[in-house]
Amino acid sequence: MTAQRVLTPQLAQHIDQEVMVRGWIQSRRDLGGVQFLILRDKLGTVQCVANHFSSPLPESCVEVVGTVQHHPKAPGGLEIHATHIQILSEAIAPTPIEISKQEWHTQPETLFDYRYVSLRNPRERAALRVQAVLVSAFRNSLMDMGFTEIFTPKIVSAGAEGGAHLFELDYFGQPAYLAQSPQLYKQIMVGVFERVFETAPVYRAEEHATSRHLNEYLSLDVEMGFIDSEEDVMNVEEIVLKDVCKALREGCVDEFARYDAPLPDVPERIPRISLLEARELCKTEFGYTVQGKDLDPEGERLVCQYFEQTQGSPWVFVTQYPKVARPFYTYPEGELTRGFDLLYKGIEITSGGQRIHRYDALI
Amino acid sequence: MTAQRVLTPQLAQHIDQEVMVRGWIQSRRDLGGVQFLILRDKLGTVQCVANHFSSPLPESCVEVVGTVQHHPKAPGGLEIHATHIQILSEAIAPTPIEISKQEWHTQPETLFDYRYVSLRNPRERAALRVQAVLVSAFRNSLMDMGFTEIFTPKIVSAGAEGGAHLFELDYFGQPAYLAQSPQLYKQIMVGVFERVFETAPVYRAEEHATSRHLNEYLSLDVEMGFIDSEEDVMNVEEIVLKDVCKALREGCVDEFARYDAPLPDVPERIPRISLLEARELCKTEFGYTVQGKDLDPEGERLVCQYFEQTQGSPWVFVTQYPKVARPFYTYPEGELTRGFDLLYKGIEITSGGQRIHRYDALI
Repeated sequence: MTAQRVLTPQLAQHIDQEVMVRGWIQSRRDLGGVQFLILRDKLGTVQCVANHFSSPLPESCVEVVGTVQHHPKAPGGLEIHATHIQILSEAIAPTPIEISKQEWHTQPETLFDYRYVSLRNPRERAALRVQAVLVSAFRNSLMDMGFTEIFTPKIVSAGAEGGAHLFELDYFGQPAYLAQSPQLYKQIMVGVFERVFETAPVYRAEEHATSRHLNEYLSLDVEMGFIDSEEDVMNVEEIVLKDVCKALREGCVDEFARYDAPLPDVPERIPRISLLEARELCKTEFGYTVQGKDLDPEGERLVCQYFEQTQGSPWVFVTQYPKVARPFYTYPEGELTRGFDLLYKGIEITSGGQRIHRYDALI
Repeated sequence: MTAQRVLTPQLAQHIDQEVMVRGWIQSRRDLGGVQFLILRDKLGTVQCVANHFSSPLPESCVEVVGTVQHHPKAPGGLEIHATHIQILSEAIAPTPIEISKQEWHTQPETLFDYRYVSLRNPRERAALRVQAVLVSAFRNSLMDMGFTEIFTPKIVSAGAEGGAHLFELDYFGQPAYLAQSPQLYKQIMVGVFERVFETAPVYRAEEHATSRHLNEYLSLDVEMGFIDSEEDVMNVEEIVLKDVCKALREGCVDEFARYDAPLPDVPERIPRISLLEARELCKTEFGYTVQGKDLDPEGERLVCQYFEQTQGSPWVFVTQYPKVARPFYTYPEGELTRGFDLLYKGIEITSGGQRIHRYDALI
């Protein structure tokens, strides 16, 4: 075959030309000896029409050579009239779930059991592409601001957060643990590179049944030296979030559309409100009394709702947490601290602050 | 202070101007009431001259405001005449090792014990900056070629490589393991994104005392679909290596200079030689008989030496490994396979090949 391989989104530029496409048979229909195949590659799908062809099972991997033609009724407005089809790898059984479905009404457990095929569904894979674009933009934004990426050990001899909820493992006869956070390493590295970040897994051995906890997740960690206050940290975070959202708006239009989700944006300046004011706002604006000393989930939801309605920002920095609600190393201001949280659409998505930088004060 | 902060490499652009520098006191000398401080920031060092100043211990963190002056005898040809020095954080004891030393003649164990300060040495930190630049260039090169980054779990329920040398941990009462390789995940993800990569830690529970093994390291993993042979994989790898070396040549000049190491380069085409030819070459060119069925360390050294001398390439792809020396899933060619290794300056640095892609052949 001499035809050049073309990815599905580029097919419109090859009308009436012979092309080669490679991918998976997502679905097939036989209409009186004519096969209509939906071929899926990494970027999209295309309908292929084949005569005298006996299609293998869906998810078989094929190479199709043919001519691209306009066809108003075909998905995407064009189809390939196949002249040669080569089966590269044949599926030996029907997939346990139907890949081409828009949405599954199945137990999550089932989808996880069949993750090796369920991720082939364009809606399922969208989340993983968003993750890739997000993490890449996060790193690029920080590198542009002079941050250096670090790679810290995940097998550690002690926990960074007091010892609870650690996964323990046997390290050649000695107990070791999976790191809950790169915190101590990134603090050390501030003395080396001044500004550092890491994008790596962290581990929490907490049994949970909420959408706010994970036992293993990718942590986006940042640490910087020579700040004047936590305002500097929030300013850097604002720039990173703007860069990340810009990358998502440019690179993930289709992915967000598959969830009918609006593309994210960051306002010129993210509102900043103290915890005390945020709690009062819940009471005065919504008649809700926040439980505990922090913001409870309902409080977080209401604060975001308020700023989305009044300032068009689903993002809010909640600042000046009290000492009792923050770790001992947070820089104090009387009974309050220079610690903050970032809320987005009702959920705390990052935590930050200024640390105490003097030995005597830490002791 | 209203002076703008300047990083040390930019000081030459501020001669006779007032600037602020921030960093660590790397060393100090008192010459009759005048203090000469070497201040180190994340990119370099500068000499600061201060009258009537009692310097704190080295590694104290300071902010210096003063005027930049030419001074032929100072390191770098300029110095800052300090008018204000603020101690941001004072070292409370001398560092256990002298940071400013060019090189330490200390046991590696000692350097590791004091890693939190030894990494501040510009020669020590150079390796970590090279790592950051290398990994970033690796990712960018692959993304330019349409690869998607993936983030796979490191806690797994079984090993990808037969079960030996696994770190075991307790996962809520069930045995689990640390992933030795993302192999099975990246193969699954070829069905989703066609071309994927990951830069994440992997784990090998092997006791060792060599420079070729690590229990935890960052693995640069690539997987791609729709290849015609292992040549396609080597072609992609060549492009990645060229991009990585270009990034190192542009971004790590100082880091390589600190080790008197030449900046790396990749020839237009990396030589490709079959294992059989490589073994014969050791015999005919060097009179050395390779032990075993693979290349032994001396054989790897000699093959690289040969191509460095004859073609100026310290890189060599050794191809067509025999079936007995490769995993069962490697695509066979008679008694040989489409598996290859990449040698660089005498050491195998990557392994690759084409996998069997048909279910019946794998079974």
